[in-house]
Amino acid sequence: MTTTSAPATGHDDHAGPDDATTARVDVAGLAELLLGRWPEERRRARARAGEPYYAKDESLTPAEHRERTLEQMRAMVASDDKLSWLAFPERLGGFDKPGANLACFTELVAADPSLQIKSGVQWGLFGAAILHLGTPEQQDRLLPGAMDLSVPGAFAMTETGHGSDVDSIGTTATYDPATEEFVLHTPFRGAWKDYLGNAAVHATAATVFAQLITNGVNHGVHCFYVPIREVAPDGSAGAFLPGVGGEDDGLKGGLRGIDNGRLHFDHVRVPRTDLLARYGSVAADGTYSSPIDSPGRRFFTMLGSLVQGRVSLDGSAVTAAKLGLAIAVRYGAERRQFAGSTGEEVVLLDYATHRRRLFPRIAEAYAGHFANERLLDLFDDVFSGAQDTPERREDLETTAAALKSTSTAFALDTLQECREACGGAGFLTENRITSLRADLDVYATFEGDNTVLAQLVAKRLVADYGREVKGATRTPAGMARFVVERATSAALHRTGLRRASQALLDVGDPRRAAGHLRDAATQRELLADRVATMVEEVAQAMRPALKAEPVEAARILDENQTALVEAARVHADLLRWEAFTEALETIEDTGTRLIMTWVRDVFGLTVIERNLTWYLLHGRLSDQRARTVTGYVDRLLRRLRPHAVDLVDAWGYGQEHLRAQISSGAEAERQDEARAYYQALRASGNAPVSEKALRKKAQKQR
Amino acid sequence: MTTTSAPATGHDDHAGPDDATTARVDVAGLAELLLGRWPEERRRARARAGEPYYAKDESLTPAEHRERTLEQMRAMVASDDKLSWLAFPERLGGFDKPGANLACFTELVAADPSLQIKSGVQWGLFGAAILHLGTPEQQDRLLPGAMDLSVPGAFAMTETGHGSDVDSIGTTATYDPATEEFVLHTPFRGAWKDYLGNAAVHATAATVFAQLITNGVNHGVHCFYVPIREVAPDGSAGAFLPGVGGEDDGLKGGLRGIDNGRLHFDHVRVPRTDLLARYGSVAADGTYSSPIDSPGRRFFTMLGSLVQGRVSLDGSAVTAAKLGLAIAVRYGAERRQFAGSTGEEVVLLDYATHRRRLFPRIAEAYAGHFANERLLDLFDDVFSGAQDTPERREDLETTAAALKSTSTAFALDTLQECREACGGAGFLTENRITSLRADLDVYATFEGDNTVLAQLVAKRLVADYGREVKGATRTPAGMARFVVERATSAALHRTGLRRASQALLDVGDPRRAAGHLRDAATQRELLADRVATMVEEVAQAMRPALKAEPVEAARILDENQTALVEAARVHADLLRWEAFTEALETIEDTGTRLIMTWVRDVFGLTVIERNLTWYLLHGRLSDQRARTVTGYVDRLLRRLRPHAVDLVDAWGYGQEHLRAQISSGAEAERQDEARAYYQALRASGNAPVSEKALRKKAQKQR
Repeated sequence: MTTTSAPATGHDDHAGPDDATTARVDVAGLAELLLGRWPEERRRARARAGEPYYAKDESLTPAEHRERTLEQMRAMVASDDKLSWLAFPERLGGFDKPGANLACFTELVAADPSLQIKSGVQWGLFGAAILHLGTPEQQDRLLPGAMDLSVPGAFAMTETGHGSDVDSIGTTATYDPATEEFVLHTPFRGAWKDYLGNAAVHATAATVFAQLITNGVNHGVHCFYVPIREVAPDGSAGAFLPGVGGEDDGLKGGLRGIDNGRLHFDHVRVPRTDLLARYGSVAADGTYSSPIDSPGRRFFTMLGSLVQGRVSLDGSAVTAAKLGLAIAVRYGAERRQFAGSTGEEVVLLDYATHRRRLFPRIAEAYAGHFANERLLDLFDDVFSGAQDTPERREDLETTAAALKSTSTAFALDTLQECREACGGAGFLTENRITSLRADLDVYATFEGDNTVLAQLVAKRLVADYGREVKGATRTPAGMARFVVERATSAALHRTGLRRASQALLDVGDPRRAAGHLRDAATQRELLADRVATMVEEVAQAMRPALKAEPVEAARILDENQTALVEAARVHADLLRWEAFTEALETIEDTGTRLIMTWVRDVFGLTVIERNLTWYLLHGRLSDQRARTVTGYVDRLLRRLRPHAVDLVDAWGYGQEHLRAQISSGAEAERQDEARAYYQALRASGNAPVSEKALRKKAQKQR
Repeated sequence: MTTTSAPATGHDDHAGPDDATTARVDVAGLAELLLGRWPEERRRARARAGEPYYAKDESLTPAEHRERTLEQMRAMVASDDKLSWLAFPERLGGFDKPGANLACFTELVAADPSLQIKSGVQWGLFGAAILHLGTPEQQDRLLPGAMDLSVPGAFAMTETGHGSDVDSIGTTATYDPATEEFVLHTPFRGAWKDYLGNAAVHATAATVFAQLITNGVNHGVHCFYVPIREVAPDGSAGAFLPGVGGEDDGLKGGLRGIDNGRLHFDHVRVPRTDLLARYGSVAADGTYSSPIDSPGRRFFTMLGSLVQGRVSLDGSAVTAAKLGLAIAVRYGAERRQFAGSTGEEVVLLDYATHRRRLFPRIAEAYAGHFANERLLDLFDDVFSGAQDTPERREDLETTAAALKSTSTAFALDTLQECREACGGAGFLTENRITSLRADLDVYATFEGDNTVLAQLVAKRLVADYGREVKGATRTPAGMARFVVERATSAALHRTGLRRASQALLDVGDPRRAAGHLRDAATQRELLADRVATMVEEVAQAMRPALKAEPVEAARILDENQTALVEAARVHADLLRWEAFTEALETIEDTGTRLIMTWVRDVFGLTVIERNLTWYLLHGRLSDQRARTVTGYVDRLLRRLRPHAVDLVDAWGYGQEHLRAQISSGAEAERQDEARAYYQALRASGNAPVSEKALRKKAQKQR
């Protein structure tokens, strides 16, 4: 990495070593690299997302949009490539490629998020429930209909009364040995299944989660395959089957191409063999058995097998942020507003505020991209069976929760900033961003509410910390690194000596301090140390809760809840920074690597800048060094200015994906026309003189 | 104010002096106070906003929604109260009550933001342009049609190529003395008028801004009254008049009940007498004259007369945030998720993270409310003529820009937080928040892009600072206070002595430091000092630009642009804090004042908390004191917990305004039903026993 050893470049825009002024992004090369581990599949999925047939049609009514989305899914099934089947077993026509499947799914957001999420419901939830919770026999029997869409399905887990707390759902499935059936029942309104994609109109079956009761014992939440609607002769969904009812969730803030709805069951009989029985089954006489003894671990194993939703939303959120940024950056590189020092109007990207709004987000999108690539690796390792260990599974779940909760929040915030950075034009649907943002909104709360996920992450970090302290268990890979980091530097921090010595060193040229900040090792230490220290602090603060009375324990948890959530976010920052830094080593082109190192530095340093208070209060940065962070980031942003369009182009989304009027070059054309008009007018000698100019002239003559 | 002298209450939820545990919000009394200066008008406007006839109908197509909005406006005109005419002259049937008019306008957002903004276009922009830029003769001739909606109008200022930079628009109005007409012309595509409400369908006339050219001189931007469409026999808009063209802006991210569109003019002839001539007129022979000599000051005076848009958006944004918060807080007070220490599920508001998400925003909404009340005062003083001085006008414009840019950003951010705090339910249109947020989105960029407005504010603050330093001019009221503050404490800060002594004092009980932070004088000093110091720093950093070459000057500006924007935001924080603190004195009920003082403290301290890095790096807070801020805020939030619903109820919006299923009490009903079910089940003796409980029992027996 060239920059870490390069001398400080001062505040001049492009001053510095020769390669810093001549470096250019190899857009095609970087784009190729970003295709990741399954380049062919991803390329095909991206090409599909750019086809007009799959593009979101903003003119449709919600009802029309729903039908069109289903049609598009049928077209995907009918296509030769069968990308929707990548994750399914080869023996059923699939490809057994779980990672490639999610990479392709991620691309679909560029076509229409409704198409993506309705596909996700069908193949990633309904189908995946059969795949991961069913026995081989059940897969053979039930998957083909889910795969080929002859059975559109709903994934009936969430209830009106219980979302994140799946364990507490109210729906019951009580075994009746007399008929060898489960009796599926909704005991009260709060137990209606709710927000289910496909449930309002299209689904003819559902995978329904319910409390399994047999012989008077509740064995906890299990999943049942349940036909819910008649199938009309043309294959479409007809009336509800006896005992099944429901209603339409109606309009939503976005994703209007999906028919979300509610379902309820009145003593509906489900054959014993339609309990998806991989993790728990009931014999004819009602005896329950499970390969997993502990009901708690069984429950989390079942839910954990559905982690792919979070993994794929993480990648999709990053993709959506990229689309918004590509539109805003392309427009910002053309649009001019207010005359500058030369009299000519200034391009938006030449304003410091505009760079501040967009460039750190370009950096964060790259960080999110590389982190998702690593998450896909981890996912594929586990679900392909290559490295399916409990530790890897736990690491996968924690990482997915950390990244999903971070990237979906990032995407919404970024799309909003992009929309505002495009002014009034950004508000028009023809410029795409508001539409994309509305659709992405629910990504923040579905497949795990972001705040709940962050707590899940933090609690695992704290538990790992406890295990590490006891030395009883090896920590998962993600934890190990920062604990090592922490260990090597903790002594110094703890004594406060470090702060004192750093303060001494920092006296003098602030640029020297900045030079240090762009050192990758410094960034890593600052980021990793923060995670380790926060986890340690929370762990210690919560320790008394273990022995406290319930009410006091609740108070202690309450006092530390905000810190828990923050620790999870900080963990995600470190994960993303590490992924970005690792990825830098795979960039062969020197100029590209140099520029991407600046981008990585922008990510690392803006994360540190956001949390400067923490670094100051914990004595990790001296006042003097802290003061240099913002100035150094601003210089980096100026240095990235000439590469901004290249950096968003390298994401590989063309106008067929962006589909915004303002990303089409139309603004530059309009400006050329205006410029030509004024030039011709001046040349004609008929140009009016301005009153302002006349008065200035008159004043001078006075 | 009771709290400032009360002893520190420790970390226990409700411990403290007696009045702190018994204090309750007098909801009705506070609601009455919040009605402000024009309670009768505001009450009537709010009642209208709660009538089903005016409620947003989410089921309409965009085309239907546009027609319905126009119908609603006609009904408003036909109503007895004529609230839409409050700002217009008595001689024309109005009431000459500019402040009351905006107070009422603000309430309309609760009905349907499309209705509000389309009304704003008709009466607040099209009508206001005639009122403020026209002569009395023109008012008499043109206002009645605008007032009674017989002439729906567009306000044609913004062009595709120029938004914030109105000075540079391309449309020309060239005077032709032969016919005593202006020739209105759009010379190129970038000069098309764009984003204009009413322009796509309903407008039959427009107030068009164009470069006024006569006798070969361009006198800058002026406004012209221009019929644009034929009027059909039924009074509706027909085809474009000759020379006028345009197109529909199509779908937008929100406000779909408004027909925004584009207009262009091909040598359209406008009678000389239809130049709105208050600030500039052309004699028959083409001689231009104006009561304002300087073209620059003339331009800003004309634009300044239209400041009401910003004032009213500020209030509307605060209102929208209140609606979102009222929905989320009411739901958060009922909704339960995950079992707590007693086994019962915990109400969302009892989670620390949930309080952190919502309560500081309740405080900020109150701060925004009181600041808007003061802004309305200022506006009414100027526009009623009571105190129409150049200084007051300038103060009004600066304050409006500061508050509008702050409150619209706050509203969007708050609505998003509220929507996420309601989980999946928040995404459903039946729960209102996503719909409100989509409509509010454009408030961030219309009537002045927020980033541009912030710079306008900061530049005025810097200019005022320059004048203050020179001692040449009195600073406007808003500036004076903080400069005084700065002066009294600057010496100490500058030497760093203060920091050192404070650090010494802080050693010991951190709660003592927190006690100090809730002192109003401390909060004021911290907030005011930050504004003064930032303005001073930016002013000094930019001083070299005055004597520099253009390119160097541009570089200096660029380096300080981010700080300028930040200074403006900080100024708005101080304005809101001051307004809140002043308002506290008007609350007579002791309990209410006590609780509202906590709310004010939450606002002040969360602002300080957000900017803690600055306070640390500028030596304004010791590390030790800074460390107490977050803990103290958290304690305040816990203390506010029992009053949260009262605090949002006091805003005066009932279910007829909130119109969200989740704010109706339905959630509590569902929980009661579920609870009753489980109780009956337990009583019946048929309740299944959980496998978990069985295993625990078995383990104990082993």
